[in-house]
Amino acid sequence: MTVRIDLNLSLDGVAMPTDQTPENPMGEDWGRLVAHYVATKTFRERVLHDTTGEGTTGVDDRYAEAYFEDVGAEIMGAGMFGFHAFPDDPDWRGWWGDEPPFRGPVLVLTHRERPPIDFANGTRFEFLVASPQTALARALELAGGADIRIGGGVSVARDFLAAGLVDRLHVAIAPIVLGRGRRLWDDLRELERYDVTSEVAESGVIHVTFAR
Amino acid sequence: MTVRIDLNLSLDGVAMPTDQTPENPMGEDWGRLVAHYVATKTFRERVLHDTTGEGTTGVDDRYAEAYFEDVGAEIMGAGMFGFHAFPDDPDWRGWWGDEPPFRGPVLVLTHRERPPIDFANGTRFEFLVASPQTALARALELAGGADIRIGGGVSVARDFLAAGLVDRLHVAIAPIVLGRGRRLWDDLRELERYDVTSEVAESGVIHVTFAR
Repeated sequence: MTVRIDLNLSLDGVAMPTDQTPENPMGEDWGRLVAHYVATKTFRERVLHDTTGEGTTGVDDRYAEAYFEDVGAEIMGAGMFGFHAFPDDPDWRGWWGDEPPFRGPVLVLTHRERPPIDFANGTRFEFLVASPQTALARALELAGGADIRIGGGVSVARDFLAAGLVDRLHVAIAPIVLGRGRRLWDDLRELERYDVTSEVAESGVIHVTFAR
Repeated sequence: MTVRIDLNLSLDGVAMPTDQTPENPMGEDWGRLVAHYVATKTFRERVLHDTTGEGTTGVDDRYAEAYFEDVGAEIMGAGMFGFHAFPDDPDWRGWWGDEPPFRGPVLVLTHRERPPIDFANGTRFEFLVASPQTALARALELAGGADIRIGGGVSVARDFLAAGLVDRLHVAIAPIVLGRGRRLWDDLRELERYDVTSEVAESGVIHVTFAR
């Protein structure tokens, strides 16, 4: 059983752009950060439900496939679920649509508990007010011996890394400099205790994996 | 003619560690940042005057060789010359020893002019109070059509990048997270106008080149 994180970064370490505006709610930087991932065959199938078989099949796709393999439970922050969009609507089912790509238990870390939400494809969002350690213990109960993925966002990822709970961190570094946004690396010096491997994809993206 | 910069970075973008103490004047982080470079055959020959032929000969050494090729003049900050060690000693010839590896004209950007210093191997330090543009114009006069290298440190490199004067930036990213020190990337968003290529060396170091 492995506790895993996968993140997309810019060369300057930005994992979460902050260029959103009312006129452009996604911002422009996010698309540049994840372009290589969104282009993969696996992302198109798994997240966009694209059945044409199109998409890239090289190194980036190998990591995209691995992203979805052997995950028994996922932990994510409230922002990644989409809580902030309709915080007071008890019927809001998150922004992942009717077929969230998780297909299993997802623990959403929040400050306000609410009943779980089930989807037909096996995805079940469970809402938890908990420390990283407590959330991980609950995820282990649910995962049936498979891996736990810390899905993000970057502050949740940083919390789990700082707590020393992560066995494998994979970052896909796009060769761009964003110059603004929330960075992953600051104060994460303890990563020096991991083994590091790197490879460059056809897209120019640099995949770096820390494992222990 | 190309204006070039080569820098060693950590994954979190640190180009200049700040962990120096009176007891450990070099600090510990610097050695980790440049370990792959110091290990190359070219560095050992060119900087350490090691004639044993030892040292690595892979991808890292290819970049080390390129570092010294076709440079007609170098521009560096006062810190890289070693001004701060003996700022008031007119006889101080910098910390590069009797055979500085430059073997040609070096412009040292400073706040206090002083006479040039010549070395037997062709290295000539010239001291200049000047903007990046003026320093570059002087370097072009001296370089005889060969390349100009902006040697560093990181603040000088950032000044030339921000002024749009750099044609090629090569960063050797060591797969370590330092968590402290002076970073290269902040506010350098204009690098998006360059073509970027990356490759991973045998040492695990990621070489990223921005070129225009």
